[in-house]
Amino acid sequence: MKIVTQIVDMQKEADYLRSKNQKIGFVPTMGYLHEGHLSLIREAKRYCDVVVMSIFVNPTQFGPNEDFKDYPRNFDRDVELANSVECDIVFCPNVREVYPDNYLTFVEVEKITQVLCGLSRPTHFRGVTTIVAKLFNIVKPHLAVFGQKDAQQAIVIKRMVKDLNYDIEIIVAPIIREKDGLAMSSRNTYLSSDQRKQAVVLYQSLMTVRKMIEKGERNVAVIKNHMIEMIDQQPDAVIDYIEVVDTTNLESMIKINGEVLIALAVKIGNARLIDNMIIQA
Amino acid sequence: MKIVTQIVDMQKEADYLRSKNQKIGFVPTMGYLHEGHLSLIREAKRYCDVVVMSIFVNPTQFGPNEDFKDYPRNFDRDVELANSVECDIVFCPNVREVYPDNYLTFVEVEKITQVLCGLSRPTHFRGVTTIVAKLFNIVKPHLAVFGQKDAQQAIVIKRMVKDLNYDIEIIVAPIIREKDGLAMSSRNTYLSSDQRKQAVVLYQSLMTVRKMIEKGERNVAVIKNHMIEMIDQQPDAVIDYIEVVDTTNLESMIKINGEVLIALAVKIGNARLIDNMIIQA
Repeated sequence: MKIVTQIVDMQKEADYLRSKNQKIGFVPTMGYLHEGHLSLIREAKRYCDVVVMSIFVNPTQFGPNEDFKDYPRNFDRDVELANSVECDIVFCPNVREVYPDNYLTFVEVEKITQVLCGLSRPTHFRGVTTIVAKLFNIVKPHLAVFGQKDAQQAIVIKRMVKDLNYDIEIIVAPIIREKDGLAMSSRNTYLSSDQRKQAVVLYQSLMTVRKMIEKGERNVAVIKNHMIEMIDQQPDAVIDYIEVVDTTNLESMIKINGEVLIALAVKIGNARLIDNMIIQA
Repeated sequence: MKIVTQIVDMQKEADYLRSKNQKIGFVPTMGYLHEGHLSLIREAKRYCDVVVMSIFVNPTQFGPNEDFKDYPRNFDRDVELANSVECDIVFCPNVREVYPDNYLTFVEVEKITQVLCGLSRPTHFRGVTTIVAKLFNIVKPHLAVFGQKDAQQAIVIKRMVKDLNYDIEIIVAPIIREKDGLAMSSRNTYLSSDQRKQAVVLYQSLMTVRKMIEKGERNVAVIKNHMIEMIDQQPDAVIDYIEVVDTTNLESMIKINGEVLIALAVKIGNARLIDNMIIQA
């Protein structure tokens, strides 16, 4: 496995691979890898000759009072894990090369970035689309894999790719969960052992309302109230949002009809956790 | 000369050319070609195997009360002229394919887009950077040529390319002028024959203050006042701005020191004309 740190070296490597007709797959991450990230690499390897994973804790997607400084990092362990799933290249640029002094350019997707996570994190998706556009121009992939865990991110990236005519195929891979159902996340490390037990309520509330919908419930208010009641029983849980929305334009609805995305964000202690489920009504 | 209208066809053509190790040069235009545009194609041909010129009157770079609808168009003549300088591919996409319904994504460069032309055209450069980013992802050039006539545009594009890590070399080609010094522009067609005579004052005012600077004048207020006096003598001339700024960050100054950009915009009748000169003090 190759480790590349300079932007120009990654671009040269991409040009070389493309000149040899190698199909490049790309998995952008912020590191502190878990089984979820590894599943994205495996997915990319199914379609591509060479898989590049980036490890970069991107400052522009954190708000001023968020956890950029505290975000967990363990580069040596990440390299070992990437190697274990036969990742070909790890690209880990320096923050000062990615955002030099007097950096001025941002990519913004309107509307669908202002709901759900965008409401409590107003500049988050601007940071995400900007770094992903930059990484696309550096890694020059044919295909990129994102996780369904960040459902809104996947939808926003797909829209950016379509709107800006990036000639890159986007694959969204399923959520990988712990045995009890908690969605894997680097931020789970913030949880105390008691909070870790409470955290499973996100998944449990989704499973419960999925059953309600399967049994015929279509009233969004009823579904949301049921989730609120379940989550409020956990002493450390503070709900940021629970939304039932259209899977492409993220518009909320009163009555479920067809495919919907149920997404929620809940703070448990210092960890802001997200989870979601796409349900066919 | 090939004419390509579909985005996916242009991307396939670019992939094919790159797979054959052909260096792609790109000249984005809004059509209604004049000798200035042709000089950009000639410049691109000096460095590249294949030159693509786009013709697209980009709606997002016009303000609501600007001349999008009236902007001059003559596709047949453009194709003839492009052919005459051995342009290889003309890419002329349809506006509804470039900006489909529910288009949401924009590329924005901050600060340097809010001065000079950005003051009276606040969304102009957002439209320019968005369409250029899209065209870069469609045409996949190794090199792109822009005209120095749009000095601020060239600086903004260079900044976008650097910030977003586009692996594309940007060349800025000199202003091409009519015999009397008027900078060539598709918008000169808006001028009546009397206004056409008045319009040369932009160039004359730049030449006059260049001589003043060569003779030692360093006071920006004196230079600007001299230009204002000259231009105000033309009955139809209404000054939008006259600025003396740093050539990279576009910051204005009180005293000239080193290389400066003198840029101005003047409305003469229905034509908003711009011109500029880089002067080494």
